[in-house]
Amino acid sequence: MILELINGPDDIKKFSPQELTLLSQEIRDFLIEKISTTGGHLASNLGVVELTMAIYLAFDLPMDKIVWDVGHQSYTHKILSGRRMDFDELRQYGGMSGFPKRKESPCDAFDTGHSSTSISAGLGLAQARDVLGKEHFVVSVIGDGSLTGGMAYEALNNAAQMKKNFVIILNDNNMSISENVGGMSSYLNSIRTGNGYLDLKKHVTNTLSRIPVIGEQLIDKISRTKNGIKQLLIPGMLFENMGITYLGPVDGHDVKALTRTLKEAKNLDHTVLVHVITKKGKGYAPAEKYPSKFHGVEPFDILTGKPKKEKKNLNYTDVFSKTICSLAKEDKKIVAVTAAMPDGTGLKRFSSLYPDRFFDVGIAEEHAVTSAAGMAAGGLKPVVAVYSSFLQRGFDQLLHDVCIQNLPVVFAVDRAGLVGSDGETHQGIFDLSFLSAIPNMSIFAPKNGWELEKGLEFAFSLNSPIAVRYPRGEAYQGLGDFKAPIEYGKGEIIYEETDIALLAVGSMVSTGEHVRQKLKAEGWNCTLANGRFIKPFDKKLIDRLAADHWLIVTMEENVLQGGYGSLINGYIHEHYPAVKVLNIALPDAYVEHGNVSLLRKGLGIDSDSIIWRMKKDYLDVERQNREWKDKMK
Amino acid sequence: MILELINGPDDIKKFSPQELTLLSQEIRDFLIEKISTTGGHLASNLGVVELTMAIYLAFDLPMDKIVWDVGHQSYTHKILSGRRMDFDELRQYGGMSGFPKRKESPCDAFDTGHSSTSISAGLGLAQARDVLGKEHFVVSVIGDGSLTGGMAYEALNNAAQMKKNFVIILNDNNMSISENVGGMSSYLNSIRTGNGYLDLKKHVTNTLSRIPVIGEQLIDKISRTKNGIKQLLIPGMLFENMGITYLGPVDGHDVKALTRTLKEAKNLDHTVLVHVITKKGKGYAPAEKYPSKFHGVEPFDILTGKPKKEKKNLNYTDVFSKTICSLAKEDKKIVAVTAAMPDGTGLKRFSSLYPDRFFDVGIAEEHAVTSAAGMAAGGLKPVVAVYSSFLQRGFDQLLHDVCIQNLPVVFAVDRAGLVGSDGETHQGIFDLSFLSAIPNMSIFAPKNGWELEKGLEFAFSLNSPIAVRYPRGEAYQGLGDFKAPIEYGKGEIIYEETDIALLAVGSMVSTGEHVRQKLKAEGWNCTLANGRFIKPFDKKLIDRLAADHWLIVTMEENVLQGGYGSLINGYIHEHYPAVKVLNIALPDAYVEHGNVSLLRKGLGIDSDSIIWRMKKDYLDVERQNREWKDKMK
Repeated sequence: MILELINGPDDIKKFSPQELTLLSQEIRDFLIEKISTTGGHLASNLGVVELTMAIYLAFDLPMDKIVWDVGHQSYTHKILSGRRMDFDELRQYGGMSGFPKRKESPCDAFDTGHSSTSISAGLGLAQARDVLGKEHFVVSVIGDGSLTGGMAYEALNNAAQMKKNFVIILNDNNMSISENVGGMSSYLNSIRTGNGYLDLKKHVTNTLSRIPVIGEQLIDKISRTKNGIKQLLIPGMLFENMGITYLGPVDGHDVKALTRTLKEAKNLDHTVLVHVITKKGKGYAPAEKYPSKFHGVEPFDILTGKPKKEKKNLNYTDVFSKTICSLAKEDKKIVAVTAAMPDGTGLKRFSSLYPDRFFDVGIAEEHAVTSAAGMAAGGLKPVVAVYSSFLQRGFDQLLHDVCIQNLPVVFAVDRAGLVGSDGETHQGIFDLSFLSAIPNMSIFAPKNGWELEKGLEFAFSLNSPIAVRYPRGEAYQGLGDFKAPIEYGKGEIIYEETDIALLAVGSMVSTGEHVRQKLKAEGWNCTLANGRFIKPFDKKLIDRLAADHWLIVTMEENVLQGGYGSLINGYIHEHYPAVKVLNIALPDAYVEHGNVSLLRKGLGIDSDSIIWRMKKDYLDVERQNREWKDKMK
Repeated sequence: MILELINGPDDIKKFSPQELTLLSQEIRDFLIEKISTTGGHLASNLGVVELTMAIYLAFDLPMDKIVWDVGHQSYTHKILSGRRMDFDELRQYGGMSGFPKRKESPCDAFDTGHSSTSISAGLGLAQARDVLGKEHFVVSVIGDGSLTGGMAYEALNNAAQMKKNFVIILNDNNMSISENVGGMSSYLNSIRTGNGYLDLKKHVTNTLSRIPVIGEQLIDKISRTKNGIKQLLIPGMLFENMGITYLGPVDGHDVKALTRTLKEAKNLDHTVLVHVITKKGKGYAPAEKYPSKFHGVEPFDILTGKPKKEKKNLNYTDVFSKTICSLAKEDKKIVAVTAAMPDGTGLKRFSSLYPDRFFDVGIAEEHAVTSAAGMAAGGLKPVVAVYSSFLQRGFDQLLHDVCIQNLPVVFAVDRAGLVGSDGETHQGIFDLSFLSAIPNMSIFAPKNGWELEKGLEFAFSLNSPIAVRYPRGEAYQGLGDFKAPIEYGKGEIIYEETDIALLAVGSMVSTGEHVRQKLKAEGWNCTLANGRFIKPFDKKLIDRLAADHWLIVTMEENVLQGGYGSLINGYIHEHYPAVKVLNIALPDAYVEHGNVSLLRKGLGIDSDSIIWRMKKDYLDVERQNREWKDKMK
């Protein structure tokens, strides 16, 4: 295998053109084999094999800095920089990340994870280079999907002022995770197909050339004019208009053409955008056919493309999907908004049933939130379905455009809590903190699938902003007998005892139930309460728990700072100083990739860790006290 | 005065062209007179007098919906909709807001305050109209400065898909608050001056017309081609490329031309952008000359344009300005980033002294934060100078691009706490909450001007992300004798007693000092401690306070949820259950416009309100107890 000769960034430079062709095939085979075993991002990585190779041929890593937008397409980059051997542990607990990480390799110039940041980060690196008087190249690689995100445009607008070289590679596959939308996409599409340009060029040339002699001279003359027709007719005018030189479009699977164009780009003394046309999923038939399905995959069978594990039960996203469709059937004012994730958020079915009430706004969370606010101000009942970590992008818009006006927008916050193998940038562990600081915002977290359904029903009846927050993965089916109706700001008591109170929200209610059962076996009687509403929290429930429990254990899958426990600590301290409180929450740190149950153990929020902590801090002493009291009797 | 005939949105329609000319003059005089008394936004409002009149002539309010981007240019709109009489109380406590407010008038379609939201909100209103089968127009009015904000582009990208009428008015005055920057600005400038278009048109026409007979036919033929040269040559191609019809540029001070173009825009069945050229400050010489200075003004003398009150002492922004320049002199790695506010943030002097190390990125907080992260990754020490409420826009970028990689970016967070007359959207009362939820982030708040200087010095030595948070207005000069050196995560004790502990951060330290003095006069001995670091908070300081005080009063100018008090409550409850705690913070609500000291009283965070609250909740009972104990002796 020629691939085995690659152990560092310069190794690819020794290869002949024939060897490069072989290499691209071997990389594809390698990626398909490895990802079929570990899971990971497949289609996007298959699309940039040749582009990455060309980058390594045209630039010198790690001296030159490459920033990968989002970063899930960096697998070939990881291979070429010498991390081939780490692919068996890709995205596993303690193993290699699926995203660029500066601590992993000097070839990773900047950590990414969310969309549309690469031009900003690259521009910053280029500016640092210039201030410090260094000499090297900086390249930002951004997808056409990421280009729908506003901050990419903010950065383009700023990059237009650069007086030294800065290379932006537009990796254009006509896709976000799903199909791409919006004006920019149509524009790029017109370049890709070349119709506008070619039609016009043909027409003008034909017309002019019909004029004998003069015609040809004219074409030539116009071409040489500084502000001439040629410049206006070339594709990429939109970028040229902003002051950015446009090169392309280039075939993204032609290493030679790519390398040549990138070398050309290095010669310019300002910002240049190289437009590269790639095919998502290239070289693996199932992924070419269903690029969205093969964007991020679980382990799969290479021959059939089918997942190795069959899905058995409904996950929370399915429950949302089903519920929103049935609610929308009854209430014609319900509309749905997604930021480029109709599949991931479960809105696909809604979009087929109610196409006129469905809005895919592109990778544009800020706009998603504020346009939903506009819809609500116009009399609709919008739901914004979004992953927890992506909602971070709309914080100011939530705070201002939705909540100052107290507009009835429902936020279906999926992937709240630990998400697993995507790691730091995708963990949904901050939403309780940033949402609860917002006036007029209510936050609800269901304990199981049934409660998500009922919570959504309730949310649309509320007439003010509310976030319904639920985790990734299978909808919990346990505690199915506990179906107290949803009341605003009220929790429910599931099992009532009089010793220790476990007060959990969302996914932690099931963990609380495990804690309760295990402790019962050891002779401790635990009340299990489901907070349901993080904001406003249920003061009467806390009063009731404080009245006849000596210890309250709060449980949440969110960082401690500003989370559920933090919200209620002040209330407990003021009113019940004698009651002990233990806040179970995530520590003040980022959480790396890995299997969720391993992560929960590592972070101390699985039932065994919680019990260990309870014993160490409170139960052991209490037991000794009780035994001592018994003896004294 | 013809102005007095305007009492509702339809009244302007009765006027003759001559009367309209008179009206525009009267509105200008009125605005200058009123704003010179109350203060407010002047230059931007003078720029849109005719544009607003034309909107009222071309559309039917309140049926048609007008969304004003940012909203500080809505004064003429407030006059024409019938709120002339409320201008004496403009921006005063309890008076009329300086921004559009739905609760103020049915003519205010959507509340705004921050930049770049109007296209999103307007698009949402238009989508609601279409889903509900209503018939009316929706207009978003956005400045060219606001167009540098990414979410405006996200919305444009999405609006390109609209199948019904939606009007965007680009109010182009070539300014943000300060001069506008970036590629889009250059592009608009080329349209404004018309050079690119005119030069080319002239050249092509000249060349072609030299060809006898055929030339003219050719021009005609090309003009009529669907994808013909004409379409490619017209200004606004950048918008046309995205699929948005472009009309303009139109003289923004010609009511007739404006009205005609707006009526034209109403006839289209998709999104149309009307490009209007206005002059910021139009009609008031000092404001035309210094539009940035007259953007937002304190009461001023109309003849001279000078502020009525002279500034006596340095404000916090001045201290930052001075300090950053002197630090940058010593350390060549220090660079500064602003999002379109070189004046407001105090970076103007830095930009003159170190132009190569100064980056004005446009109204683009997301990009500002991430490009600073790029600079830090490239070896620089960037400071992002930004108002607290605008930093909300960069939350995800702080969380991911800066803090995951633990990059040494300093955030100079100005206008933290209550800001006064700008109201809800500008109060900086959430930053402690959203910043403290972020791992690796440190937060420092100085008690006075000296401590801001030292805090900034410290911040650049830290080598990890830190926010230095300080309020609007005059730098506090009191407590000048207390100059304990800044140590990471350490507070300082200012006066030490053994009864009650006042533990304050930032602006509340001076309030704490007032509380201490007043209570001393009543026989209560208060320790005054300055927390300095909100994150990490000083546990040892709390241990020391808890050891010999029965009551700890935390004080902060931030909402309670997720703020300083909320961060330390858990620690106090766990370790010192017997110590009483009172959290003085802002309530879970938005704070309207008004004089800051009135707001503080109203919100219960001035010294008298705090004392009243302390007495009611704790001191009165404690005094009775003590008296009773004394009697018992």
